[in-house]
Amino acid sequence: MNKNNYCIIMAGGVGSRFWPVSRQNHPKQFLDILGMGKSFIRHTYERFLDIIPAENFYVVTNKKYTELVKQHIPELKNEQILSEPLGRNTAPCIAYAAYKVNKLNPDAKMVVAPSDHLVLNESKFREVISEGFDFLDDNNTLLTIGIKPNRPDTGYGYIQIDTTVQIDNFNKVKTFTEKPTLEVAKMFVESGEFFWNSGIFIWKSDEIIKQFINHLPEVDRLFASINDSYNTEEEENAIRQIYPECRNISIDYGIMEKADNVYVRCSEFGWSDIGTWVSIYQHSAKDVNGNAILGDVLTYDTEGCIINMPNGKVAVVQGMKDFIIVDSDNALLICPKNDEQNIRMFVEEVKMKKGPDFI
Amino acid sequence: MNKNNYCIIMAGGVGSRFWPVSRQNHPKQFLDILGMGKSFIRHTYERFLDIIPAENFYVVTNKKYTELVKQHIPELKNEQILSEPLGRNTAPCIAYAAYKVNKLNPDAKMVVAPSDHLVLNESKFREVISEGFDFLDDNNTLLTIGIKPNRPDTGYGYIQIDTTVQIDNFNKVKTFTEKPTLEVAKMFVESGEFFWNSGIFIWKSDEIIKQFINHLPEVDRLFASINDSYNTEEEENAIRQIYPECRNISIDYGIMEKADNVYVRCSEFGWSDIGTWVSIYQHSAKDVNGNAILGDVLTYDTEGCIINMPNGKVAVVQGMKDFIIVDSDNALLICPKNDEQNIRMFVEEVKMKKGPDFI
Repeated sequence: MNKNNYCIIMAGGVGSRFWPVSRQNHPKQFLDILGMGKSFIRHTYERFLDIIPAENFYVVTNKKYTELVKQHIPELKNEQILSEPLGRNTAPCIAYAAYKVNKLNPDAKMVVAPSDHLVLNESKFREVISEGFDFLDDNNTLLTIGIKPNRPDTGYGYIQIDTTVQIDNFNKVKTFTEKPTLEVAKMFVESGEFFWNSGIFIWKSDEIIKQFINHLPEVDRLFASINDSYNTEEEENAIRQIYPECRNISIDYGIMEKADNVYVRCSEFGWSDIGTWVSIYQHSAKDVNGNAILGDVLTYDTEGCIINMPNGKVAVVQGMKDFIIVDSDNALLICPKNDEQNIRMFVEEVKMKKGPDFI
Repeated sequence: MNKNNYCIIMAGGVGSRFWPVSRQNHPKQFLDILGMGKSFIRHTYERFLDIIPAENFYVVTNKKYTELVKQHIPELKNEQILSEPLGRNTAPCIAYAAYKVNKLNPDAKMVVAPSDHLVLNESKFREVISEGFDFLDDNNTLLTIGIKPNRPDTGYGYIQIDTTVQIDNFNKVKTFTEKPTLEVAKMFVESGEFFWNSGIFIWKSDEIIKQFINHLPEVDRLFASINDSYNTEEEENAIRQIYPECRNISIDYGIMEKADNVYVRCSEFGWSDIGTWVSIYQHSAKDVNGNAILGDVLTYDTEGCIINMPNGKVAVVQGMKDFIIVDSDNALLICPKNDEQNIRMFVEEVKMKKGPDFI
């Protein structure tokens, strides 16, 4: 394995779309919503283990999840867990990891990946990532992984490729687009030029730092200012000082959409960001009535439902069709699958009613 | 208050119709399903307190509920709680209380009442019961309380009166009938001759014993055989000996349907046996959408539902119409109001799946 290859796992997210199973103090990346026996973050870690040296993994997370990260990946040493004092979106998270890794190894190449995605074909995935690392040797680009869309999903951002500029399996990126309407998404898929934006990136650490200097100079200035402290006892304190001053901005908006050397590796390896209950449903085993059930549930005249019960509890469900039923700790959610976008609003209203710690 | 008047509260029932709120080790009589601030058994006790001397109350219950009875009615002395080693229906329960009370006071009159009913007009109720006690002075009858029906309820047994034999407000009973079909129930209500059987009785202790001798001699023989032990330290042991040998039989079937001196006081005092979730619904306060809600619940596009959540838990419910949603401890029930008769079956199936202690 190449000692210059590093893996940065981003695990600071606090999603509310899986409430009440996903909670503020135990968010999605630490859950096993699909009932596969391992949390998303554990799967993510193991997915890269064959191609990245174990000592080259870094997990960036919110300070409040540091202990959870240790529990799920006990192999990590303390210095492999980068704790953010507060969430500032992906650009600062990546800057932190890039400066730290680059100081350790100026020849570092790093793959950056979210901690809560699903990959079905892991060997194909590793092939793609390895190919990406190799590609960087001759092409100093910002590489992103695009997924060939199999349906006009309106929940994803899309990457348009420049079909005229291709090197091996890699295309130059023409545009990044936000989540489209259904009509636009259909056109995207038909065109063959648009790919889902997986949020997985590969680049050299010194190259991404150069891009921070160009496109997000105020972010660069903060992380550069504490360069002496990386990988020392001062690091945690220094990070705590600069984070509150740092802009909240995504790497897509801050850099990927602005840099002119962005390439995409268009791939197919059974990927989903598992962003909603319905995507959980799509990837779950179902009973004869099309119910995706996790836990002890007796159903009668019930079909097309997602039912998720905690250990030790039984549900008896009669007469439900295409509902989400999730029982977890101090909350129960019952809502039609078609209305799952309401869950964010539900969470806000429960927060107003019961206080922020309830969520 | 008349020192000869006694109150026997029957509290041994283990209903499953309110599962999962009502549990084997915490059944309905100890619950406050309507959210009135007191359990059914506490309400029952207080309902009689104005007309019966406190030392003349006896609660008959299953041994496993003795502690619960003490918690709900701490005023009771130990000797006022009669513990059955196992449930044998109402006839043995009443025989036990009658022999015990009769030995204490051969002039005793006793009202016998279930512990889990609802009475809205309690002063009217007390009037009726007091009138009943007085009636016994001149008429040595078995008195039962009939309720004027306001709808053709198929969940109740009915009492037909003999309109030709009336003394004051009391009619001789012609027949007892089981739960009728809807068509029959409609005829009953229209006729004006049929009343709901409330399961509340008033009689002299020596008279009901005489009826046991006549109609249930084998039950009488058991309870008469331990006459020396009542109100002594031997009582508990003696009861434990005879109960397993005793027949399982209701007072209605064993005596009321057979005796020829049964009278009924037809009454109206806002009574319900609160036997089903739908009867809970009928007697509960409802929100603007007709939902009867107990606990912290946010509803959206939801109407006509009964929602019952435990303390400290929040439910978010969208898109439900006329459902029962009950969350309690280790079980969650979701079923249409119209199918509530299935709950007994659900309980049996959960028992099969999870074992008897789960219920």
